[in-house]
Order: sequence, then C-alpha cells, then structure tokens
Amino acid sequence: MHGAGGSLMHSLIKEHVIKMLRPYKSFDVPLTLLEDSGVCNDIVFTTDSYTVKPLFFNGGDIGRLAVSGTVNDIAVTGGKPLALSLSLVLEEGFPLDDLDRILTSINLTCREADVDIITGDTKVVERGSLDKMIINTSGIGTRNPLLDRNLEYVNRGSRWLLASNIRAGDKIILSGSIADHGMAILSAREGYSFVSNIASDVRPLNRLIDRALEVGGVVCMKDPTRGGIADLLNEWAEKSHLGITIYEESIPIRDDVKVAASFLGLDPLEIGNEGKVCMAVVPDMVDEVLDAIRELDEGKDACIIGEVTDEFDVVAMKTIVGGTRIIGRPAGDPVPRIC
Amino acid sequence: MHGAGGSLMHSLIKEHVIKMLRPYKSFDVPLTLLEDSGVCNDIVFTTDSYTVKPLFFNGGDIGRLAVSGTVNDIAVTGGKPLALSLSLVLEEGFPLDDLDRILTSINLTCREADVDIITGDTKVVERGSLDKMIINTSGIGTRNPLLDRNLEYVNRGSRWLLASNIRAGDKIILSGSIADHGMAILSAREGYSFVSNIASDVRPLNRLIDRALEVGGVVCMKDPTRGGIADLLNEWAEKSHLGITIYEESIPIRDDVKVAASFLGLDPLEIGNEGKVCMAVVPDMVDEVLDAIRELDEGKDACIIGEVTDEFDVVAMKTIVGGTRIIGRPAGDPVPRIC
Repeated sequence: MHGAGGSLMHSLIKEHVIKMLRPYKSFDVPLTLLEDSGVCNDIVFTTDSYTVKPLFFNGGDIGRLAVSGTVNDIAVTGGKPLALSLSLVLEEGFPLDDLDRILTSINLTCREADVDIITGDTKVVERGSLDKMIINTSGIGTRNPLLDRNLEYVNRGSRWLLASNIRAGDKIILSGSIADHGMAILSAREGYSFVSNIASDVRPLNRLIDRALEVGGVVCMKDPTRGGIADLLNEWAEKSHLGITIYEESIPIRDDVKVAASFLGLDPLEIGNEGKVCMAVVPDMVDEVLDAIRELDEGKDACIIGEVTDEFDVVAMKTIVGGTRIIGRPAGDPVPRIC
Repeated sequence: MHGAGGSLMHSLIKEHVIKMLRPYKSFDVPLTLLEDSGVCNDIVFTTDSYTVKPLFFNGGDIGRLAVSGTVNDIAVTGGKPLALSLSLVLEEGFPLDDLDRILTSINLTCREADVDIITGDTKVVERGSLDKMIINTSGIGTRNPLLDRNLEYVNRGSRWLLASNIRAGDKIILSGSIADHGMAILSAREGYSFVSNIASDVRPLNRLIDRALEVGGVVCMKDPTRGGIADLLNEWAEKSHLGITIYEESIPIRDDVKVAASFLGLDPLEIGNEGKVCMAVVPDMVDEVLDAIRELDEGKDACIIGEVTDEFDVVAMKTIVGGTRIIGRPAGDPVPRIC
C-alpha cells in the first residue's frame, strides 16, 4: 500500500527518505517542507517519475501527464516554468511507434505550457525488468513575476505559496470537477463500459494560475493528484495546524464520475485529478479570483468549496443530508498507478 | 542493444527523441547539442535515471552513483552544482534496510559534493513490474564563477564548456585509469573471482574540475561513462569535425582491469568509469592543468593521452606495438546496466 499516496506513503517518506537524507543547508523552500517544489536562489525545482498504467488513456497519455504534472508542481509553488528535463527508461522491445506517439504528445504539451525540454537521458533495460516504461520529468522555473503583486494582498511571512501561509478565514477554491483523471485511468485499465466516456482532465495549469495571481490574494495552491482532495486538504490542515470545513453540495463532480465511484464503492474525494488546482485565498479577494479563473475553459466550473477555521484541526465536510463527516487522510489511493 | 550506450542508442535518441521533440526556443546549451547538461538563463540543468544492477557493488552503490553522475554532468558543462532532486521508484516489497542504506549513501555523497537534495518524489509499483528500483537524480547548478577566468585563456565562441569548442592542437587529459567502474559492476554481477579486487571509481569530480578551471585553458570536459573513452572521443571528433590521436602506452589502466578485460574479450576503451574526466585543454596550459589535478587523490594518475588534429576526422590510436588502430564508436556497451 506504500505506493499509492496517502498516509502509508507519507510515513515511508518521513521515516526513511527525510530522516536519512538530513539536508544540511537552508533553502527558501527545503525538502523537509514536502511541498510540490523546492526553491533555492529563487529557482523553483521539482521532479516526478511517472509509472501510469495504461500508457494511453481517454484524454491523454503518460507524456502529457508528465509534462503537465511537472509544470503544475512548479506553478503552484509560485514558479514560472522555464525548462524541463526528460528521462526515459524503456523496456527492451518497447514499440517505437508508441515512443514516437508519446514524444509527440510531450512536444505538444510543452508548447501548450510554453516550456522546452532542454536536457535528457534515455536508457533501455532488459525485457522483464520493467513494465514497458517509466518517464521522469524534472523542471525548473524562475520566480513568477506576478507573485510580488499577488502577495501585496497577503502578509503571511513566506515569499512563496506554501501551506504554512494558510490562516483561519481563508476560502478554498477548487478549479473544477474532482476525480476525473483517476476514474479515466480505472476505466481504461479495467474496461468498465459504464465509465467509458470519462476523460482524464490532465493539462498544464500555469495559464489559470497566472490568471489567479494577476488578481492577487492567493496564499497557497496545490493540485489534487494522488489521494485526491481528501489528501490535499489534510496536508493543508496538518501543515497549517488549522481545520478546514468543506461543503459536499459545493464540490464539483461530473454525474458519470459520481455514479461510477458509487457503483465501485470508491470515495471520489480520494481519487486524483491531473488538471485541477485547489487555492487558499484571502476572503476579500476570493470572489474576484473566482470570476477571473472562470473566464478560462480550464476554470469554468471553479467553486468555493470551503474555508479554513481555527475551531478544530481536521477536515470536516458538511454533508448534503445535513450531517458532518470527518474526512481522513486516505491510507492508500483506491486507484494505484494513476500517475 | 539500444540500451547500452554507443551508436545504436545515439540513433534512437537522434531519430526519435530529438526528432519528435523539436525544441522551439533558443537556449545557451539546448537539448539538440546532446551535451551532459542543458543551460538556460545561466542555470545548468541535467537529469539521469539509474538502473544499475546490482544495487551494491565494490566501491559504491546506486545512491552514490546517482549523486556523483548528476554532479559530474553539471560540473563538466561549467556549472557549480547547487541542488539535486531525488525520485525513487521502488518495487513493492523492496527491503527498507536496503533503502536506508542507499539513502545514507546519497546523503554522504551529497556532503562530499557540497550539494543538497531539495525536492523529491517516491512511488512504489506492484511486484514484478520493476526489477527492484530506479533512481532519477536531476540537478541544477549556477554558472561556475571560475569559468570566466578559465576562458581568458580560450577564445572559442561559447561561454560554456562544449565539444564544439575543440580545435586542432588541443591536448587531451584523462584524470585516471579507465574501465574501473564497468569492470567492478561486471565482477559484482557475474561473481568472477579473478576481478574481485576491482573497485568502482564512482565519485563526485567537482573539486577536481574546479582545480583545473582555476588554472585555466580548459575548452571542454566530459566524464567517460557508458561506452567508455571510445564513445567519448568519437563524440568529440563528430561534434568538432576534427580528428583525435591517442597513444595506447599513455592511457592509464590498472593491471588487474587489463588482465580481466583481456580474459573476457572486452575492449577496456569501451568500458565506462564513473569517477574520471577527459579534458581538452589548450596546449600552452596543459602541463599546468595536469600538475594541478595530480595534487588531488582523484587526479593523481592523470595523463595526457592524446591531441586533436585537423589531418583526419576520426579517433586513431597509436598502439604499443607500433601501428595505428581506428577506434570506432561502440555499437553497444559490452557491460550493460552499469549506471
């Protein structure tokens, strides 16, 4: 279960990776903060390895996923994506047509996000020692020039967009419907015909993020990937030592995704996206930010889904039927290898 | 054979990766130059995925290899290594003791090279879909402050250390004995008792590289990894459109490595190191550079192994018995998965 995001993965990372590495210099955003990117000398730096199965799915492929994921990790921390690296590890005999299709998708997604691949590495390993391919994309970004203006409306200590910036009263915006990517992967993998129209939402979000920063008042952002918004909001609650209230009725979800998740006994709050972002925004600015991102196709379904409170320190959901449900951190993702 | 470095891998990279990606902005050192790092906005950026088998070997392990390889790729391009990313993909059930040992080695090698891990990613995939683990380390560096002084002695167009800087008359320095790493891996993998004392030379080389740049006159550097110095020198000849003459008698090689390679029918020129560097240096400065790096343990066996010529455009070796042998680019590495 370690592999799927959620609390078991977090304990693996905290009790092994962070513990053994003991970083010893100080940085603007060090590894120990476990944010989506690190920052040193105003360079935003991030890495992700992609093992998604299948490699091609409704709405995207591993190449589009890799570029989008890396661009989004830079952008949510306050970086302007500048360049990516591409490392391919291929199983011997990997079809060259599939490779070309994935590389073409990488190229197109790079253009969409206005970044280039500037360094790479390619290795081929013997048959049977790897399931088809793994892609690593790392990325660098400069400090987003919109960040200083954005922070004029925020006085929270950090020059970057961090979970520790969150304060009671901040509103939570979600840029669109939840669980699309995870359900699309599940559908492609299992061949469930009743979810066959669900497409992944995988896409670069730097344009939408810039639109929000132009308005200002954003204190923190993160894309809900592995573990869905349940994992994301619990991370924010932990790091800010505050509670978060969300309203079930305000959480955008496609009808077919809702039905499919219900049929499969999965909680859509725990299923990841790859083209959505959560933002914590100061209350005075939240409506203006919402209006701005709704003008874009990738933000047209954006909603305020909740707010931060100092009355408790967990994530609580006001349900449609009138109760309150505590949303825990998922132990593992119900849909592994979604990214 | 694609996987092992050499000409088949180069055709895979040129005819698929570079062709499909079509980078569209211009950079100081773009992907298309196929150097060890790319450079944009004076940020040196590199990536490598490590699939070495076995994970632990005489002289090192996959963690030390990853940190050293990435640090060295930054340093040879003219960067001062600043920070690394660490992405781990683990097979389900991977022993946590081994993970801790590898992470500890990463930490120690980072301190040796004076860099930190500042961002990371960890994924676990189901058993059978990966042979134990893959590590990706990417790295960023700032422009090495010694580079401007070094280039006072060189007038070759680029502000960076590139193969295209090479001119006829330049001398080739090799910092120590060839083939150590590849033979150590082969020994660990096959259990050949007659090579059991051969240790990998894997180490960060940024200190040695700084020492050379302090003297000045270095036009180009590269570490001979996959494909050995045969691959490296052919790459330099191709990119500079010049020939290179090397002298067999001057190439440092340990006796036990020579005997083992001969016994196994392998050409040590094609077997990789992970702790050596080749430098092309202007003739006026070469002796001073050599003296400087010989003062360090990691450069004590450094030699001038050859020179650049405009009389032909291949790599030619004057053999000990008195003839001349053309050194071709290896089709594939005789020892796959050495890094």
